[in-house]
Amino acid sequence: VGEHSIVGPNRYGKSAVRVFRVDPDGGRVTDLTVDVACTGEFDAVHERGDNSPVLPTDTIKNTVFALAQDRLGHEIERFGEVLATHFLEFPSIDCVAVTIEERPWTPIADHTHAFTATDGERRTARVLAGSAGDRIESGIRGLTVLKTSGSSFVGFPRDRYTTLQEADDRILATELTVEWRYRDPPDDYSALWAAVRAALVDTFAARPSRSAQEQAYLMGDAVLAAQPNIEAVTIGMPNRHHLAVDLNRFGHDDRGIVFQPTTEPYGDIWVTVERG
Amino acid sequence: VGEHSIVGPNRYGKSAVRVFRVDPDGGRVTDLTVDVACTGEFDAVHERGDNSPVLPTDTIKNTVFALAQDRLGHEIERFGEVLATHFLEFPSIDCVAVTIEERPWTPIADHTHAFTATDGERRTARVLAGSAGDRIESGIRGLTVLKTSGSSFVGFPRDRYTTLQEADDRILATELTVEWRYRDPPDDYSALWAAVRAALVDTFAARPSRSAQEQAYLMGDAVLAAQPNIEAVTIGMPNRHHLAVDLNRFGHDDRGIVFQPTTEPYGDIWVTVERG
Amino acid sequence: VGEHSIVGPNRYGKSAVRVFRVDPDGGRVTDLTVDVACTGEFDAVHERGDNSPVLPTDTIKNTVFALAQDRLGHEIERFGEVLATHFLEFPSIDCVAVTIEERPWTPIADHTHAFTATDGERRTARVLAGSAGDRIESGIRGLTVLKTSGSSFVGFPRDRYTTLQEADDRILATELTVEWRYRDPPDDYSALWAAVRAALVDTFAARPSRSAQEQAYLMGDAVLAAQPNIEAVTIGMPNRHHLAVDLNRFGHDDRGIVFQPTTEPYGDIWVTVERG
Amino acid sequence: VGEHSIVGPNRYGKSAVRVFRVDPDGGRVTDLTVDVACTGEFDAVHERGDNSPVLPTDTIKNTVFALAQDRLGHEIERFGEVLATHFLEFPSIDCVAVTIEERPWTPIADHTHAFTATDGERRTARVLAGSAGDRIESGIRGLTVLKTSGSSFVGFPRDRYTTLQEADDRILATELTVEWRYRDPPDDYSALWAAVRAALVDTFAARPSRSAQEQAYLMGDAVLAAQPNIEAVTIGMPNRHHLAVDLNRFGHDDRGIVFQPTTEPYGDIWVTVERG
Repeated sequence: VGEHSIVGPNRYGKSAVRVFRVDPDGGRVTDLTVDVACTGEFDAVHERGDNSPVLPTDTIKNTVFALAQDRLGHEIERFGEVLATHFLEFPSIDCVAVTIEERPWTPIADHTHAFTATDGERRTARVLAGSAGDRIESGIRGLTVLKTSGSSFVGFPRDRYTTLQEADDRILATELTVEWRYRDPPDDYSALWAAVRAALVDTFAARPSRSAQEQAYLMGDAVLAAQPNIEAVTIGMPNRHHLAVDLNRFGHDDRGIVFQPTTEPYGDIWVTVERG
Repeated sequence: VGEHSIVGPNRYGKSAVRVFRVDPDGGRVTDLTVDVACTGEFDAVHERGDNSPVLPTDTIKNTVFALAQDRLGHEIERFGEVLATHFLEFPSIDCVAVTIEERPWTPIADHTHAFTATDGERRTARVLAGSAGDRIESGIRGLTVLKTSGSSFVGFPRDRYTTLQEADDRILATELTVEWRYRDPPDDYSALWAAVRAALVDTFAARPSRSAQEQAYLMGDAVLAAQPNIEAVTIGMPNRHHLAVDLNRFGHDDRGIVFQPTTEPYGDIWVTVERG
Repeated sequence: VGEHSIVGPNRYGKSAVRVFRVDPDGGRVTDLTVDVACTGEFDAVHERGDNSPVLPTDTIKNTVFALAQDRLGHEIERFGEVLATHFLEFPSIDCVAVTIEERPWTPIADHTHAFTATDGERRTARVLAGSAGDRIESGIRGLTVLKTSGSSFVGFPRDRYTTLQEADDRILATELTVEWRYRDPPDDYSALWAAVRAALVDTFAARPSRSAQEQAYLMGDAVLAAQPNIEAVTIGMPNRHHLAVDLNRFGHDDRGIVFQPTTEPYGDIWVTVERG
Repeated sequence: VGEHSIVGPNRYGKSAVRVFRVDPDGGRVTDLTVDVACTGEFDAVHERGDNSPVLPTDTIKNTVFALAQDRLGHEIERFGEVLATHFLEFPSIDCVAVTIEERPWTPIADHTHAFTATDGERRTARVLAGSAGDRIESGIRGLTVLKTSGSSFVGFPRDRYTTLQEADDRILATELTVEWRYRDPPDDYSALWAAVRAALVDTFAARPSRSAQEQAYLMGDAVLAAQPNIEAVTIGMPNRHHLAVDLNRFGHDDRGIVFQPTTEPYGDIWVTVERG
């Protein structure tokens, strides 16, 4: 026990809880980062190591997932109220601050289950010139797409370290890096760039895949099919995993629509598709 | 002089050269980050401190600015070729790699000189509940806007440390953080959010300002005028300076359309506008 | 099936696998980020959706954890060889590239189980002056400390969403933000700053805690006890969770020394300790 | 003029002012990032576009540089007071908040003018195995060093775009990326790594250079000379420019000890030194 006193500001909670919800009717996903901060009767926690008043921050995280299934609609303000009300029922908690940040996703036209986000997408070019040869490459960095259906991963080999479940239909999310080189330089690089981008996005949305590898190949193949000026295209496709959250263990009837997006680790797929 | 040899990869150049060009006809801006890497006959530079073959990287930077005025069109591939060709004329340089990344800006409808970018924009909410009172705030983070005209800054006081020139018409660029609290909670938070965003963007584009402070106030005022449900709105407006680049010193006829975007330092303006 | 061909570069793997190992003899921890990239006979994966050749990247991750327990010594080169050799045994994999990055941790003097890292630690100050009153605050940002023993968390309440196990002895890792204000301004701010830092680090290492909240309080209490010039100290203590990895499910005898460091979500504790 | 009122919080100022000061007696450098935020009588600025009360944020930046020469000692609290007092003298400013963050630099032993910082330095390794051949590379990322003397850059060619002044003695600052491959694998990778790091740091501090290129070469040469196990070493040396700030234009007697560190653009030098 120390000799000095606890005074406000004094709070604890869970920050950076990422939760992703797929609308069961399709056409919409909700991608949130939630911070929950609680203040209350916590002097004994700090000063005497008495943990009986302190709901674990791990439980706060679980609660965000659990309530997201049925209580998270299209307005983050109302989900914030649901969470705040829930935590206020806990006796030692006097005040709750729930801060929510929503990353917007836009439906891809004509596709119910596919979406794009615009987080720092860039057009790129590389010009190499001189004694080692001349070459022009064009590209896209940060093309962010996600689909909630039309991606499976089954039939892979299993060894003693394999715990992954086979998935008939999973979320596939990525931020593409795409670069291509030319067979013939086009008259209009900008028009070609826009057409390549459209082929990539449309193929991602329209073509089902049995692995991220196949998805990347299908996009590269579509680019070559659509653009005779292009000789080869390289696609970098980090697999931004959205982990299933098991709500059954909380006594909820898990409907398979709540996921935890993760940053690390990530699968990393690179493929080059060449004409011929 | 050392005893060991230089071998490739061996290159030098300038990276992260940010250059911004305003199309004189309006309606378009070009926002690039350029890397130039040179290889060539540089053994004496490394091994004997002979700098006669090494065009300074500062000159490489200057060249990017100088050539941007007249040679930078709408295709970064062609500007890359212009730069590569220019540097290859220098005798010690054998090969050049020019890498360009373009940040896309979208015109704001009905406004010739105003643009938006979508780099990580987020919808936000904060719900406070409990013994200290209940409150709901909504907001936007990362709303990125820029205008090339309709922003002046004159009439400010000058002291011994003031070197800033008065500007009748300058670039104003910012990534807004906006938060508001409610007089009456709306029925539809999402519709209100979209309307607030539209008011912010439209006011930024349509209303000329005499300072970033006035611009921020005008936006806040417009939000309150449009949304009777809102009691007060706070606007954070970092001023992302675009520095003029003097091309006259290079013997070019400076037309005032090439700028250097900077990240630090930045002006930081925060204002709260309240109803009443 | 597409009409175009796969050519190299063509690889897949798992990136950003974070693994943390505690030396059972104490005195040392190993904190790695591992990327594994595989090339091989994968045309059918891309072109025909045949996943039989593709060891899941999730398995690659699991393998890094599994082999870290017994095969990760003090040299990342040798662990890289262990991993590369393991994956090469898989028939479809022709080449493996293992890239490892080690974050160095330094033992805290006289403490077997406590460590510091120096990742961007900063000294800070804030001076407020004018009509609202004058105040000087000093601080530290990014003071990174970790201990592998002397931290428990038991006796917390459980509700339907609580799945956290009680922990008698867990890893506690944090990057502290500390700010203090003065009762009397010191003659030598720098000497005081160094003494505060020493009190924080030593208390973290020496004093066992029953929660992050108690740990933060103990540090604040020690600062006040050591520095009569300080009136109050605020401590921000994000709990950077190191998750246990269950190696028993891989048929290994889990010895409790391999962990997965995580970035998000994190527990966030803030406490102010005041004299009196 | 809008219809709604300005209320606090309402502030403006300059953030992220980076200033670097070299102690004229040597042995110490001070590396700060300063934010200045002012509140006061600014309603007319916001509401009526009257800029007469608003000291430009550009002037705030200049003032930080100007006062750093003679008023910045070793305690950031006192420099904060100097700045706050200065800005409070301006009639429209009621309150000032000065926030300062200091990045610590540590002298390199036995060298008066050379320093290291520890901001995320990492040990790295890459193991390549399989049909394309086996190879082990070791390395360092983020080795941050700076020297205030012993670096010149003169004798370079000049063209119409060259405005850089020749420098007999300038600051050289960098965050090194170093990778090496082996002629013979060592028995002790960790001991070799530590010896390579020492050779790099000591050579940087002890050997004067006539260009960043020569400095990089000298370090690579020293690594090969010290380590017969190493076959070749690659050094990436971004030149983190510290721009001179001309204080004479403010009526100060410029002593050449105040600099502005910059992040972008930066010179980028890569060299591989090979045995033989």
